[in-house]
Amino acid sequence: MDTRERILDAATRAMRDLGVARATTKEIAKAADCSEALLYKHFSSKEMLYNAVFRERIPVLKEASARLHANVGKGSLEENLTAYALAAVRLYKDVLPLAGGMFADPMLLDVMRASFASTGSGPHQAVLALARFLRAEQRRGRVLARADPDAAAALLLGACFQRAFFEHLVELPDDADRFAADLVSMLAPALIA
Amino acid sequence: MDTRERILDAATRAMRDLGVARATTKEIAKAADCSEALLYKHFSSKEMLYNAVFRERIPVLKEASARLHANVGKGSLEENLTAYALAAVRLYKDVLPLAGGMFADPMLLDVMRASFASTGSGPHQAVLALARFLRAEQRRGRVLARADPDAAAALLLGACFQRAFFEHLVELPDDADRFAADLVSMLAPALIA
Repeated sequence: MDTRERILDAATRAMRDLGVARATTKEIAKAADCSEALLYKHFSSKEMLYNAVFRERIPVLKEASARLHANVGKGSLEENLTAYALAAVRLYKDVLPLAGGMFADPMLLDVMRASFASTGSGPHQAVLALARFLRAEQRRGRVLARADPDAAAALLLGACFQRAFFEHLVELPDDADRFAADLVSMLAPALIA
Repeated sequence: MDTRERILDAATRAMRDLGVARATTKEIAKAADCSEALLYKHFSSKEMLYNAVFRERIPVLKEASARLHANVGKGSLEENLTAYALAAVRLYKDVLPLAGGMFADPMLLDVMRASFASTGSGPHQAVLALARFLRAEQRRGRVLARADPDAAAALLLGACFQRAFFEHLVELPDDADRFAADLVSMLAPALIA
């Protein structure tokens, strides 16, 4: 494995285990078995290293989203959305310790914001992708014509995101699957044809 | 103003301006015009200080929630929910730099979790309060009998929470009011009698 990859792996572990606030480039370099000088040859600052971790090491909703899009027009829409919502709760729960950590450091937040802006990427892309899926189902008549795909996507993914946040902070029953099903059932009369 | 209050104010400012990762008790003590030793007489650790900031200085949804509950059975339910959702987006946006920062430090997260558990409090209380409001409207026949107040509350507040998160990270149109109205319109056929 090349040095850059080793540094990224070590940084990801340190950010998860120690937190964004406590992980230092010194420790990351040590864990990657390289010098701090070499680390800074690959990443110009701690912020740029973190940015690379966010862009290259953090699991995203793309896989669950691809599964969803592969099922346009197929099977039960309610079941497809429930499976997607459950995957979203789990992924957001996994990602939040890192994503939340960005807020601990305004400089890191600035770097991330500039990076998302320059590449047209960002966490909101998941909501746009879900809205595209709902629009495709709407064209097939499986989503109600009166439904607003953007608002429906924001409601469903937003609830999954906040649930994941709560799971880190308070003791909740271990029923994310029922939670996901309840969300989709609640939305269904306004969404599903 | 007594020392404890001065320290809490200085810590809140430092956490907002420098971020949870960069704010130090040394700087906080200096800004509060006291010694670090005195700071530690009031708060046994940096984590306990941050915990007190979260519990005593962070605006919560209680006010918007109280307005909502004062309007049970009154006016347009759709308008009442839209005003609440807009207030939630704004409050969550204001609070996220601090709330997100907790995730940068696993020790701080542990302290917060224990503190929420011992007092039965936490950010999920806002969703429970919204669900109580919807249940009260359901008893008056203004919310559909088939609607699930818990799921509806999770959908609406979750979307507001995630929107606030996105607003910190990516450039979005300045239309949180339309966003809030669209959420409620989307939910309405499944929620409002």
